[in-house]
Amino acid sequence: MHRGFGTASVLAMDTRTMAVAYVERLEARDWDGVTELLAEDVVYEMPQTRERITGREKFMRFNVEYPSDWHLAIRRVVAEGEHAAIWLDVRDDGRPVDAVVWVDAADGRITRITDYWPEPAEPMRGREHLTTRF
Amino acid sequence: MHRGFGTASVLAMDTRTMAVAYVERLEARDWDGVTELLAEDVVYEMPQTRERITGREKFMRFNVEYPSDWHLAIRRVVAEGEHAAIWLDVRDDGRPVDAVVWVDAADGRITRITDYWPEPAEPMRGREHLTTRF
Repeated sequence: MHRGFGTASVLAMDTRTMAVAYVERLEARDWDGVTELLAEDVVYEMPQTRERITGREKFMRFNVEYPSDWHLAIRRVVAEGEHAAIWLDVRDDGRPVDAVVWVDAADGRITRITDYWPEPAEPMRGREHLTTRF
Repeated sequence: MHRGFGTASVLAMDTRTMAVAYVERLEARDWDGVTELLAEDVVYEMPQTRERITGREKFMRFNVEYPSDWHLAIRRVVAEGEHAAIWLDVRDDGRPVDAVVWVDAADGRITRITDYWPEPAEPMRGREHLTTRF
């Protein structure tokens, strides 16, 4: 049903629905389904490594070629207007990773994706009187 | 105007307004103003270090005592219902850091705050044919 470009069903998707579909189709390796959510000139950025991928074709190759066994589960989506923020529980070769994805949409397509993959870190000293660990 | 607890002006704040006020009042070191946005049993979490702070009093001490010279500027807020996601440009002792803050609200107060501070990282090898650097 979501195959083919420019269908009314895609154009009618709101930003939340698009954000959820983006994650679910990635997780399903439904590459055609992901592709149809994206603007042709979509920009994908990873600010932590300062890497940018421009255009749907390269971004899809990036996903298809990604070398690890990755799995995505949505913890939360917050959407407003043409922006969404996605909080993900990722498994990357079995390792649990939290991720945050910022999505921009326009005209019913995703035009920009910004990924953050925050890594585990050691607590700063001197605040043990205020914190507990989980 | 935003001094004092339980005023109508606070209770009427929507989640977006609360999220913006939270950042602006932190940046202004308006500790009373921040305090009044928070539920008494607010929970603050930093998943990267697995640190949790429980309760408004301890969380305010955490902010007041924070040892660096930090500055916060809002890049984006996305709010929906009782959730918001905040994308911040932070300066931490002059060093630029991106941060993401997830906010939960209930009954006109912030009940949970989850902070991510993604660190710079080296690009993975093998995708230079797809990426540019910025």
